[in-house]
Amino acid sequence: MPRTIVPTEPAGTLSDAWRTCVGTGRFNLALRRDYQDSLALAQRDIGFRYIRGHGILHDDVAVHRPYDAAGHRGTAYVFTYVDQVIDAYLEIGIKPFLELGFMPSALASGDQTVFWWHGNVTPPRDHAEWAQLVQALLRHLIDRYGLDEVRTWPVEVWNEPNLDIFWKDADQEAYFRLYEASVLAVKEVDAELQVGGPAISPGADDWWKPFADFVTARDLPADFLSVHAYSSGPAQHVPFGVYQTLRAPQNLLDQFARPREILAGTVLADRPLHITEFNTSYRPDNPVHDTAYNAAYLAPVLANGGTHADSFSYWTFSDVFEENGVPASFFHGGFGMLAYRQVRKPTYHLYAFMARMGQEVLARGDDHLVTRHAGTGQVTVLAWQPVGGSESPEEPDRHEVRLSIPAPTGGRVFAMRHDVDETAGNAWAAWREMGRPASPSAWQLDALHEASEPARRAFSLPVAPGADGGRVDLDLTLGRHGVTLVTLDPVRDETPPWVDDARIVARD
Amino acid sequence: MPRTIVPTEPAGTLSDAWRTCVGTGRFNLALRRDYQDSLALAQRDIGFRYIRGHGILHDDVAVHRPYDAAGHRGTAYVFTYVDQVIDAYLEIGIKPFLELGFMPSALASGDQTVFWWHGNVTPPRDHAEWAQLVQALLRHLIDRYGLDEVRTWPVEVWNEPNLDIFWKDADQEAYFRLYEASVLAVKEVDAELQVGGPAISPGADDWWKPFADFVTARDLPADFLSVHAYSSGPAQHVPFGVYQTLRAPQNLLDQFARPREILAGTVLADRPLHITEFNTSYRPDNPVHDTAYNAAYLAPVLANGGTHADSFSYWTFSDVFEENGVPASFFHGGFGMLAYRQVRKPTYHLYAFMARMGQEVLARGDDHLVTRHAGTGQVTVLAWQPVGGSESPEEPDRHEVRLSIPAPTGGRVFAMRHDVDETAGNAWAAWREMGRPASPSAWQLDALHEASEPARRAFSLPVAPGADGGRVDLDLTLGRHGVTLVTLDPVRDETPPWVDDARIVARD
Amino acid sequence: MPRTIVPTEPAGTLSDAWRTCVGTGRFNLALRRDYQDSLALAQRDIGFRYIRGHGILHDDVAVHRPYDAAGHRGTAYVFTYVDQVIDAYLEIGIKPFLELGFMPSALASGDQTVFWWHGNVTPPRDHAEWAQLVQALLRHLIDRYGLDEVRTWPVEVWNEPNLDIFWKDADQEAYFRLYEASVLAVKEVDAELQVGGPAISPGADDWWKPFADFVTARDLPADFLSVHAYSSGPAQHVPFGVYQTLRAPQNLLDQFARPREILAGTVLADRPLHITEFNTSYRPDNPVHDTAYNAAYLAPVLANGGTHADSFSYWTFSDVFEENGVPASFFHGGFGMLAYRQVRKPTYHLYAFMARMGQEVLARGDDHLVTRHAGTGQVTVLAWQPVGGSESPEEPDRHEVRLSIPAPTGGRVFAMRHDVDETAGNAWAAWREMGRPASPSAWQLDALHEASEPARRAFSLPVAPGADGGRVDLDLTLGRHGVTLVTLDPVRDETPPWVDDARIVARD
Amino acid sequence: MPRTIVPTEPAGTLSDAWRTCVGTGRFNLALRRDYQDSLALAQRDIGFRYIRGHGILHDDVAVHRPYDAAGHRGTAYVFTYVDQVIDAYLEIGIKPFLELGFMPSALASGDQTVFWWHGNVTPPRDHAEWAQLVQALLRHLIDRYGLDEVRTWPVEVWNEPNLDIFWKDADQEAYFRLYEASVLAVKEVDAELQVGGPAISPGADDWWKPFADFVTARDLPADFLSVHAYSSGPAQHVPFGVYQTLRAPQNLLDQFARPREILAGTVLADRPLHITEFNTSYRPDNPVHDTAYNAAYLAPVLANGGTHADSFSYWTFSDVFEENGVPASFFHGGFGMLAYRQVRKPTYHLYAFMARMGQEVLARGDDHLVTRHAGTGQVTVLAWQPVGGSESPEEPDRHEVRLSIPAPTGGRVFAMRHDVDETAGNAWAAWREMGRPASPSAWQLDALHEASEPARRAFSLPVAPGADGGRVDLDLTLGRHGVTLVTLDPVRDETPPWVDDARIVARD
Repeated sequence: MPRTIVPTEPAGTLSDAWRTCVGTGRFNLALRRDYQDSLALAQRDIGFRYIRGHGILHDDVAVHRPYDAAGHRGTAYVFTYVDQVIDAYLEIGIKPFLELGFMPSALASGDQTVFWWHGNVTPPRDHAEWAQLVQALLRHLIDRYGLDEVRTWPVEVWNEPNLDIFWKDADQEAYFRLYEASVLAVKEVDAELQVGGPAISPGADDWWKPFADFVTARDLPADFLSVHAYSSGPAQHVPFGVYQTLRAPQNLLDQFARPREILAGTVLADRPLHITEFNTSYRPDNPVHDTAYNAAYLAPVLANGGTHADSFSYWTFSDVFEENGVPASFFHGGFGMLAYRQVRKPTYHLYAFMARMGQEVLARGDDHLVTRHAGTGQVTVLAWQPVGGSESPEEPDRHEVRLSIPAPTGGRVFAMRHDVDETAGNAWAAWREMGRPASPSAWQLDALHEASEPARRAFSLPVAPGADGGRVDLDLTLGRHGVTLVTLDPVRDETPPWVDDARIVARD
Repeated sequence: MPRTIVPTEPAGTLSDAWRTCVGTGRFNLALRRDYQDSLALAQRDIGFRYIRGHGILHDDVAVHRPYDAAGHRGTAYVFTYVDQVIDAYLEIGIKPFLELGFMPSALASGDQTVFWWHGNVTPPRDHAEWAQLVQALLRHLIDRYGLDEVRTWPVEVWNEPNLDIFWKDADQEAYFRLYEASVLAVKEVDAELQVGGPAISPGADDWWKPFADFVTARDLPADFLSVHAYSSGPAQHVPFGVYQTLRAPQNLLDQFARPREILAGTVLADRPLHITEFNTSYRPDNPVHDTAYNAAYLAPVLANGGTHADSFSYWTFSDVFEENGVPASFFHGGFGMLAYRQVRKPTYHLYAFMARMGQEVLARGDDHLVTRHAGTGQVTVLAWQPVGGSESPEEPDRHEVRLSIPAPTGGRVFAMRHDVDETAGNAWAAWREMGRPASPSAWQLDALHEASEPARRAFSLPVAPGADGGRVDLDLTLGRHGVTLVTLDPVRDETPPWVDDARIVARD
Repeated sequence: MPRTIVPTEPAGTLSDAWRTCVGTGRFNLALRRDYQDSLALAQRDIGFRYIRGHGILHDDVAVHRPYDAAGHRGTAYVFTYVDQVIDAYLEIGIKPFLELGFMPSALASGDQTVFWWHGNVTPPRDHAEWAQLVQALLRHLIDRYGLDEVRTWPVEVWNEPNLDIFWKDADQEAYFRLYEASVLAVKEVDAELQVGGPAISPGADDWWKPFADFVTARDLPADFLSVHAYSSGPAQHVPFGVYQTLRAPQNLLDQFARPREILAGTVLADRPLHITEFNTSYRPDNPVHDTAYNAAYLAPVLANGGTHADSFSYWTFSDVFEENGVPASFFHGGFGMLAYRQVRKPTYHLYAFMARMGQEVLARGDDHLVTRHAGTGQVTVLAWQPVGGSESPEEPDRHEVRLSIPAPTGGRVFAMRHDVDETAGNAWAAWREMGRPASPSAWQLDALHEASEPARRAFSLPVAPGADGGRVDLDLTLGRHGVTLVTLDPVRDETPPWVDDARIVARD
Repeated sequence: MPRTIVPTEPAGTLSDAWRTCVGTGRFNLALRRDYQDSLALAQRDIGFRYIRGHGILHDDVAVHRPYDAAGHRGTAYVFTYVDQVIDAYLEIGIKPFLELGFMPSALASGDQTVFWWHGNVTPPRDHAEWAQLVQALLRHLIDRYGLDEVRTWPVEVWNEPNLDIFWKDADQEAYFRLYEASVLAVKEVDAELQVGGPAISPGADDWWKPFADFVTARDLPADFLSVHAYSSGPAQHVPFGVYQTLRAPQNLLDQFARPREILAGTVLADRPLHITEFNTSYRPDNPVHDTAYNAAYLAPVLANGGTHADSFSYWTFSDVFEENGVPASFFHGGFGMLAYRQVRKPTYHLYAFMARMGQEVLARGDDHLVTRHAGTGQVTVLAWQPVGGSESPEEPDRHEVRLSIPAPTGGRVFAMRHDVDETAGNAWAAWREMGRPASPSAWQLDALHEASEPARRAFSLPVAPGADGGRVDLDLTLGRHGVTLVTLDPVRDETPPWVDDARIVARD
């Protein structure tokens, strides 16, 4: 197998789109300790900029509060939980990507709901009252967090209105009316607040043109565009879960690219594009999310997605999520990068590996991404076994990556390798070996945490002289569905001349 | 005003009944960070033994999970949240006082619910399935936490079945049937598990005799008895809140004493008695809970309640509580000793003061309790302004307590005084001065935390020689609705002979 | 007593000189946990920019390490402890103000030492080797922390060379030689590193002109000037301590001002001036440091010192300090703002109060400083009882400050008052009442922490209409040696119309 | 290679002697944060009962404080640092094993010192004053921590008096005089305090008989005996370090056994025996301490030492240690199980592995120890590559251990394996690959922490039916100088019947 020669000079810059945003379960869940502990861990290891989820206006956050008692009548806007959550977000170092929805019952025109937690998906019975609610929310946020801060928080109008489970009858005209009421309300509060939509699900390409036409015709703001991407097929149900087919990873990248292709030439052509949700499966009960396969599958998506979109937001950072109810088992195919109690899944490690990449891209390939840190010169290699979804054959047990990396001439480089695959850094595999306990005991949780640690190996490699400076041969054998990070730093040898390790257990 | 002479020898032992148990909002809320932070604080400052609340079997904990898919049918018992909560309890150092309820929807015979969170209050449609559920829960707990541990956790059957809002039609016969099914199920798991009831509300004295008759007739276990006590009158509604009248504090003590009076001579006469809920008002939206008045009112109840019951459980430790929905304001008359974000209310301080009392009771009075710590000899004084509820006139601005305390002859005692009253240690009063902000800003929250700190003063007092050893005159002037703790320790004077504070700013 | 009318418009800006730097015990002590916990607390409450102390080159930090064994000879430079300390500083959020000294034994020309910890105060036996040591240190720091960062760390040459206890024979010529060797060594590493001196003690005015002449003649850098200021008289010894006279606070300000007066017209005239040490007493065993008197004394110094110097560094932040050996008692007259185990002294509170002042100065007086926060409009008042040192009579028991403060017309302001005086916020006074325990027990430490909390009171005041907007009358009565902070914020009244506190304990 | 058949029934109980005590650098170092953080980590992972080190009476703890000033004369006993350290110990969950020494300068009869930190090793100039000092210390400890607690703290008289570097002239008679004065002083405080000695170094067998004779003749208490054990040869010096030969591990066990052999038949025959120091090398600068070799070497010592002594205390838990001065490099051959900043060495992992063993010993062998936890039934296997010191040839690259383990019949066991060897769990090896940086940078420290993590693997094994119940074949291949822990737990298989991992990436 030939060796890939990694260039000395950067070919480009690694976009931060992959960590610009991450998805979350409904707003109210952010009050939980497991959720906040998990988010704090993710921010320490990964460092997302925004977090986006549903339900800030849902009844269990209880912002919209009409009252009528003892001769007093009116509507209070209550921010008890909004403040607790957003205070926590900012303390943890992440900003909200606001999604307006779902409909407070007392403002709803109907009683259709979505999810186990009954999000109301009907239009407001009074658009003026909706506008007041939106403005009350934004004015409160500005009052509490400052205008400069809130101007950096995007405001997205609703979620997947093209699906009738999320928006009554998937009524496009009704959505446009909601969009108009919302964006005008937002801009009236402050013209520099960023507002956009239409937050459509995959497979709704036919919404783009009407949306462009509508905002053009009505001269409405659309500071950014948003859309979702998933690559799984229909659900094959079993109790408490599903299996699905998966298309190839390129399919996700194609979905990322689609809106700009469609909107070329329209007024929306160069608006910022946010993939406000993406994942392999769109189901919170598909075991693929727990696997190394998921990480290997997404590696090329993270490495390359930034060329198509300004952000793509993994749905979601944690298994603290209840759209289908409370999961029946510790591992249950949840969307989370993190299972309950901060057990890290392989996909979490993929993100943590990405967070250690440099900004200068030296090489991109089908199974690798090589970067360099501008400041320190550290070279970082992300490698993975390519996987192809349901249409590809089973992957082999091993995958070889052979690279020739530029390095300072003379001496050695210190390498630290981190591996995740079917057995390494794989809590789900350990859990399976345990007999898949639904409620792991204390020692089992400890063992899952231990099993979730990536395999690591520290070593050094010689630098061979080359035409354009030194070169290091890095040969990696990855395990099945493996994702590997290698960091390479030049060795500054401080070994004193008198050191002789053979004398440590001296022979007389 | 005459001085109360505190005896030298203990008159009795201070019962721990006041901190044997504390109440909580529904089980699911224990997943929240604010809840857990508050509970950890309470355990640090107070140290309750048990915690009791509703809803371990409610749908949002999701234990009972029938399934029917892909040809598979059955019932799973899911403990994902049960484990998270009880793990947290034990980590924080508190044990669950289990209350069986409310009814899982899939097991319910009807759809009547209670509270904003819709607890189902109908009997099981199948008592055998209910028994299986109860056994699955207990077996899981024993499996996870050990039999020795779980035997120390009381199991209470349902909540206030004598009220039709909590039990369909307040049907006594149906409750007895549930009681029988439950206790037999529990004892089948392990005969030493402790199970009891009937958890009746105030005003249901007529339930005791039939209950005694029933368990006697059917030879059923009743390892303990439980009842609730509140001393407020009917609710006078305003938006988001109520006002109520209050009976005098003695009324609560009378309620504590009632069951044993009624049951004298029955088989249940000397069973352990737990007041599994008590407070002034039974409403989670009565501002009295936030005030110093509430603390002064409860001081004699805490000081004396242990003579009537084995425990009396303040309902509740935290304002994280949602029976009437999400509160519309930071302070909202919630039951909590702690408001959101660990802001301490006067009643919290009353409990923290009680936690510093010694075990030996030296004196008990209408406005004071004096104790001594066996080991260190520290004398602790709890004093309060007596308040009398709605039938008493307004309390004066000041209240004097004059005590003569035994102390080692010769020398002085060091005194540390802690005050809570209408202005000291009173976050609610500060919040009122701020203009009652519904969502306090960051600086306002800081100010509330600062304002919640009791006023403190350190000083020393001379010991005068007396017939039976030394005596210290302690004169306390309490503020309106004041509760004061004074600790008294003998001074061991180590001042070197050369010390002369007048020389600190020496004059040449 | 007339009321001081506080202007509406700012009269100037409050300089940050008071918190630009703080003093510390020797470098090695920074390895301790009590030290680091105390520094972290100070940074949370006060937020100094730099920290300066002695001994980075002392033998117990062990940087300079000649070796000669097994045929190998040379000098190693060892940064094990340097790194641990500076890593901790940066983690805690403070930067080092580097002081070069004292002399490593192996590089010293003599064996004269200072302090219990034996700092060698003799010139280097070889100035080239000294220069190598200085360069090794700076190169290592730059390598570890980055050049941009280290350029912000001032480098001061030696400490108080004008005193023969700190510099052999107080030999000026020898100091100038050391200065030259040091600054040239530093600038050779990087020309933008900031280096200065001469770090002279009070009473060495005669060193300024020769220093100016020397650096002019030799064309040497002096990026800043440094000098110390103390206002106490000679030590009157008792076992483990001293008493001293004190000059008036103005004396400290005069000392701050002196160098610029003397150097007017020289090349050094407008160099940044750092008072790299100041305090009342220069002794680490004078009880004045523990008192409210010290805080009241320093209040006008902190309020006004910024007009004379670019920084003035309180010597020191913590009692973890061993120049005279290990103190014989918990309170022992140590320099610290914090006693051991983070017990806060009154002077600590003075600094914490200053940290809450706004940047806009509205009024400065003999007993007050009034500021406003530009962003929020909060007005902050610092008031103190003026004290005059040994030449003034005893201060009265009370001090009145009457101010008329600008405020938004209509409505009220919320005020939070914090008091420190002879009994409030005064752990030392509580310790005295305890009998001055040398080694406080666990409960005594708890009581000291409680006693160290400032007295606080929350209240609101009406705004009266005035010619130039609203006015609030603020009348403060301070206790003996009192220092008081009041924050004033406009009330935004959210009290709903239905609120009636008289109904809380409703009368039927 | 034959398979070792592990019996089903326990052959004995694993003694806790291996973790009864651990060694530490001098008392004063316990004030440091790195020290306390390291100790807290060790207590979390290992859980020692006692900690023993030198210097509680050394000048830098400053207990003994004669004064003579202003007409006042006397001796103060100062416990400022004693309290800080012992408070920290108890908070961390470890008790002091008190060693009386070294001599305060003001009480010393000469000026001979030991170590870089100058511990005075001369007899007291006045034995009565020494006795007062010892009593002052113990009375203070009892006062602060309670008599019941202090009775559990052994008191050892001096350290290695048989060596002239630790005790002037190694004068046996003078030691006996000190012993007598000390034990009588201790017992006068409280007769149940535990006191002993003679704390002799290896190679002083000739001290035992005279010691036995002396205490018999004078009828002196000797509640326990203490001795040290090291197995290294003479130091071969290089700069900042040494190399040494090592005897075989059995030599250490022989040293543990020696005192009881010698004292058989004497009055001291069955006194508790504490090996109050042991290690391979007695030097704090021998790189062997940093290696996997050290762990493999000590594995059989920990597994078997409890048969010879009541405790054997690894010298020391942390590299925070300064007997030879401040180390010149991060890794420097220090005694610590933990390097600076909590970097775990292989020997730390050996101890952490031991802490996971059960109490029932199922098998002991040359390369393994197999235990079972009484409660849970978990079987734990500790395996190691036997190493033989300087007289043995180099060990092979691999070592095979083949075991047949009892297990519940039917089903599988879940196994978690943890490996430490020349490359796994080996921060020192990673540091060597980095070029042995004396002061590792931030990223290097991170990499060292990562490299210190043991390699882990989770898997399951089938249980084969056997004559006396089920059996699991466990085949372990260890790396060079490897130490391995395997935990084995029966699998309770909860896999639902519908699970089919082949469907996770479903093929259509």
